[in-house]
Amino acid sequence: MHRLSLNQKTVDRWSLAEAVDGCVRAGITAIGIWREPLHDTGVTRGAKLIRDAGLRVSSLCRGGFFTAPDGPARVQALDDNRRAIDEAAALDAACLVLVVGGLPHGSRDLPGARLRVAEALNELAPYAQKSGVRLALEPMNPVYCADRGVLSTLGQALDLAEQFDPCVVGVVVDTFHVWWDPDVEVQIARAAGRIAGYQVCDWITPLPPDTLLARGVMGDGHIDFPRLGAAVDAAGYRGDTEVEIFNADLWARPGDETVELIKSRYAQHVAVTGGATP
Amino acid sequence: MHRLSLNQKTVDRWSLAEAVDGCVRAGITAIGIWREPLHDTGVTRGAKLIRDAGLRVSSLCRGGFFTAPDGPARVQALDDNRRAIDEAAALDAACLVLVVGGLPHGSRDLPGARLRVAEALNELAPYAQKSGVRLALEPMNPVYCADRGVLSTLGQALDLAEQFDPCVVGVVVDTFHVWWDPDVEVQIARAAGRIAGYQVCDWITPLPPDTLLARGVMGDGHIDFPRLGAAVDAAGYRGDTEVEIFNADLWARPGDETVELIKSRYAQHVAVTGGATP
Repeated sequence: MHRLSLNQKTVDRWSLAEAVDGCVRAGITAIGIWREPLHDTGVTRGAKLIRDAGLRVSSLCRGGFFTAPDGPARVQALDDNRRAIDEAAALDAACLVLVVGGLPHGSRDLPGARLRVAEALNELAPYAQKSGVRLALEPMNPVYCADRGVLSTLGQALDLAEQFDPCVVGVVVDTFHVWWDPDVEVQIARAAGRIAGYQVCDWITPLPPDTLLARGVMGDGHIDFPRLGAAVDAAGYRGDTEVEIFNADLWARPGDETVELIKSRYAQHVAVTGGATP
Repeated sequence: MHRLSLNQKTVDRWSLAEAVDGCVRAGITAIGIWREPLHDTGVTRGAKLIRDAGLRVSSLCRGGFFTAPDGPARVQALDDNRRAIDEAAALDAACLVLVVGGLPHGSRDLPGARLRVAEALNELAPYAQKSGVRLALEPMNPVYCADRGVLSTLGQALDLAEQFDPCVVGVVVDTFHVWWDPDVEVQIARAAGRIAGYQVCDWITPLPPDTLLARGVMGDGHIDFPRLGAAVDAAGYRGDTEVEIFNADLWARPGDETVELIKSRYAQHVAVTGGATP
């Protein structure tokens, strides 16, 4: 339980201050931060709130969205990523999660979009290194390939990450995104030393109508958390396990109730084999 | 246009006889058959209707759904697949498409389900060979991994298929299922001599609420058909290109209107580079 981290998205209606308080009340010692509520609070004030509460920041979500071709949109995206790196440094976050973005509007050039991800990474990695921030490429479930993330497998994310120092560019393993991959255990093993974050939520069926809010609470779906957790553990990951759940039904509940549910499901499904616990 | 095949699912409200007539009216010379409407018509009568109309049967859809553990459900599934093989033989279908099935009810054992696919194939391949029917493993988009098909990539399908004579076990390349795969061109090339069918439809966003009916008409979405078609062509595939679209809006239209739309979009998006045309 000491490695459980509450990702803010799981309690989407809470402000940063409320989420910090909720963690403290529940005895949770780490938090995954989203930039929008951080901006609402102010970065300096937010960082102080978190520090004063004694919480670790397991991730800052998120940078990325840099698949646009050369032009003002791309310049703007890279600038925004530099700001995200600054914020991750201010929070002393374990990593800055990168959701790389989908196909640019009207484009069907998937290899081109993927190439621009590699180029963006080349541009941002030196800045991250100077700032002491670890970038974390997040492969996304192929259901999001067109509109969220053209990195579709852990293997593909590692192909990119391996061009860099593992302290500068790592990967995020999110069960929702990788659980289906026939190669997932091989790729998690390959990611040894490069796993910057481990996120859990379940794959539920039928998939809720809004695919962005289609994530389930652990135990409600089809994912074998002990198997994936054991692989992440065997790869040497000793960081936090973030519970990150986008789900409209969950968001409609009182935050404290959600946090208690998360704690209980975490204990029941995620922390069971010592999977992600050392 | 002479390689365009109309998959019956695209005109879901038509009976087999209506679909055959619709193809003839539209000058389409091949059809992909589904078992349920075939059973409604009767296999012998259906086969005669198709033969008398001079149509090729580009596929029979579908066998599979054999991930159940040992027991009556598995015996029943394998028996049903043998019947499907008989029907494919009666229709002289180019292949019997296999949608392998999802996780058994209540199970999270994905490697186990995948293993049972391999075992089912071992059991069915000799029967298919004796019947002169080519089985065609269909890797499914990971969005269907839990509930439809635990074969998630073309590479994984080929790992299985390559245990057998290519005339007995091949693969289906369906653009909806494979378009996102970073490895898709390599795997299509690897599939040379083993591509038993090529199916096209588009990936549209936002994904419609019912993921089973989430397929788009070519040109309405994000898939680069010329790129995938060229790869399939370069792998030596010279069979039909089946248009298979599960889409409630499309099903609500008069069948003839759908067929004309399909023909026009096929000409515009699929047949353009000589991709799937020789």
